[in-house]
Amino acid sequence: MKDIETPKLASDCVVFLPGGLLLIRRGFPPWKGGYALPGGFMEVGETAEQACARELAEETGLRVDPATLRLVGVYSDPGRDPRGHCVSIAFTARLDQGLPRAGDDAAAVEVVPDWHRVEMAFDHARIVADAERLWLGSVE
Amino acid sequence: MKDIETPKLASDCVVFLPGGLLLIRRGFPPWKGGYALPGGFMEVGETAEQACARELAEETGLRVDPATLRLVGVYSDPGRDPRGHCVSIAFTARLDQGLPRAGDDAAAVEVVPDWHRVEMAFDHARIVADAERLWLGSVE
Repeated sequence: MKDIETPKLASDCVVFLPGGLLLIRRGFPPWKGGYALPGGFMEVGETAEQACARELAEETGLRVDPATLRLVGVYSDPGRDPRGHCVSIAFTARLDQGLPRAGDDAAAVEVVPDWHRVEMAFDHARIVADAERLWLGSVE
Repeated sequence: MKDIETPKLASDCVVFLPGGLLLIRRGFPPWKGGYALPGGFMEVGETAEQACARELAEETGLRVDPATLRLVGVYSDPGRDPRGHCVSIAFTARLDQGLPRAGDDAAAVEVVPDWHRVEMAFDHARIVADAERLWLGSVE
């Protein structure tokens, strides 16, 4: 199976906090300095949920139990990442405590109140819109 | 991005037909000769939905519009495939016409009426159970 080439895999995390949407400022290209969801490449040996929780912790310092993540969708358009075909599995997390702080390859972390008005890297605005629909449709 | 190693990606398709669940008999290991969902590795340059429709066509001769597929879930347990870490993105398709015929690496294709009583390869029984819940929960 080593020789089989398939798209790369990443996981992104949508976190709505009381003050707004949790976003990072990207520390590296593409979209260096731009807003993006916390997330990154999945590692061999971890589940998509574990990858999502790990990236969230690495980039924002916030901890979430992987078992509590809810699937938002799978984003597999071959053109969504200019570096090559990379599929994102996006989750949303409910966090009731903790304050984010930037880490890893995030240059900064922000809670953005008016997130509909900012530009985001990749197709992250679409992922956020899908996550909003999921929250609106839930009975919680 | 070429050097980044992430898990392999596959797509599987759950198709409930009037006579039962559409399953193939695997032509190759693992689970050679066993029941499995139609599916296979995703190719670079295609969406997950396109991969799902392509594999369905190659293995069973049935055609489905990728845009009509509904996401069942993402299955990313590192141990789900004995060959290595492979994540499956599973969809379900509604097909109202066409008769399946075996092709490609499927040894045979069957419509199995009592699918709860047969053993399936990988974690496909779990994927089918999730798809059943999705259909039951839908208002169609």
